[in-house]
Amino acid sequence: MKSIKTVILIGAGNVATHLGMALKTNGIEVLQVFSRTGKSAAALAQKLGSYCTTDIKKILPHADLYIFSVSDGALEDVLKEFDIENAFVVHTSGSLDMNILKGRNLRYGVLYPLQTFSKKVKAGFSNIPLCIEAQDHEHLMMLMKLGRKISRKVERINSPQREALHIAAVFACNFTNHMFAIADEILQKENISFDLLQPLLDETLRKVKTHKPAEVQTGPAVREDHTIMEKHLEKLSALPAYQKIYTFISQSIIESKEKNKKS
Amino acid sequence: MKSIKTVILIGAGNVATHLGMALKTNGIEVLQVFSRTGKSAAALAQKLGSYCTTDIKKILPHADLYIFSVSDGALEDVLKEFDIENAFVVHTSGSLDMNILKGRNLRYGVLYPLQTFSKKVKAGFSNIPLCIEAQDHEHLMMLMKLGRKISRKVERINSPQREALHIAAVFACNFTNHMFAIADEILQKENISFDLLQPLLDETLRKVKTHKPAEVQTGPAVREDHTIMEKHLEKLSALPAYQKIYTFISQSIIESKEKNKKS
Repeated sequence: MKSIKTVILIGAGNVATHLGMALKTNGIEVLQVFSRTGKSAAALAQKLGSYCTTDIKKILPHADLYIFSVSDGALEDVLKEFDIENAFVVHTSGSLDMNILKGRNLRYGVLYPLQTFSKKVKAGFSNIPLCIEAQDHEHLMMLMKLGRKISRKVERINSPQREALHIAAVFACNFTNHMFAIADEILQKENISFDLLQPLLDETLRKVKTHKPAEVQTGPAVREDHTIMEKHLEKLSALPAYQKIYTFISQSIIESKEKNKKS
Repeated sequence: MKSIKTVILIGAGNVATHLGMALKTNGIEVLQVFSRTGKSAAALAQKLGSYCTTDIKKILPHADLYIFSVSDGALEDVLKEFDIENAFVVHTSGSLDMNILKGRNLRYGVLYPLQTFSKKVKAGFSNIPLCIEAQDHEHLMMLMKLGRKISRKVERINSPQREALHIAAVFACNFTNHMFAIADEILQKENISFDLLQPLLDETLRKVKTHKPAEVQTGPAVREDHTIMEKHLEKLSALPAYQKIYTFISQSIIESKEKNKKS
């Protein structure tokens, strides 16, 4: 089995940046960074001690792997212009099926890091689960070997599973962060620091490390304490969007409880 | 200033249990546990090496502090029958104003532990912020001193602030847990373990320890990636309640972004 020793990054956003850094740190050479935005390509190439190009026709033909880390909407357009025959390509999208890469005279797979990357915060890549998928066993093994160099958790995940993971991550991570942002806004109005909630957040997370989330649900909704819920809704009257979210999530908690009782 | 050395618990639910245990561990004597439900009163009294009663008229008159830890709806009824003159009483509610205790020939205050207590999971009380309020400086100091015996973080919080904290905690903790439960359900359908999301949850929490939540928002909504959002909604079509939550929270994330841009 051939080892992947050199890669080229197509895209220079958050995922490409974090992935590129992790690869470089672990002895994989990033030969080149392509991005239509010259500035981001140059910035990332500099970080990686690599070359950059904004011309898709100038992408070097001899890399062991081409990592397409562009927005879902842009992937097909970029692929159309990418003309290196028989290249081994992967995308890094949570939502796109692997087969978007099929039928293009390419060998293909998926390398999806299950993490929330923001430019402001450094990520420790080795703890990030890497979800991989490939056209056949040989390429799966190649990605597996590469993945294990940069992450302690490499999982074989097919396309429908990956899409489910992506949606689950939106709820568990992006929406959770918005819940924190709402809490922060409510506290600010009373001059209270969000930090006061930290022990509560730690505990919320600690509980689901050992229990199913539905089993450790607490709060007025699961107790069906309508007196408190109405008081809260009244206090939220100046924030109608949050009132709506409060109502629907509370309803959903009550419905889930009923559903779990039956099952 | 008088020290609080003995307490009586009115109520034997989650909060009374965790509070009672923390008090006992730190040298405060729990003289008695009252609950209308004999079984829970007896169970808690046994844990605390204390006495129990289901007769409100038999509550002992000489405790330094009476902690009312009953549901918000039950508090006024219990108070009506409580007839120990000049007793020092506190409630432990996040939502009730301190003044509900006023005008009853009582000295009064509030002792609100900002934590999510579930019977299934043991809480480390010393990390829990204790929010206190009292009728006057003397009683505030007494509660402050008592609070510091059981918690490393005692905060003076007035009634409107406490209500805001309670609502914020519902969003940041109860609703967050429901987001986890939804994610778990989505993953189960594809035979994926919720554990795979743990590094993502850790990272989500880690980010808000050093950044304002609104500043580290990630995901399709904040990027206004409507292609992905529509795909997710389609995949959620079998779960209309979650579709609705997905839509409203995504909208709210987009609106918050606009609001933050303006401010």
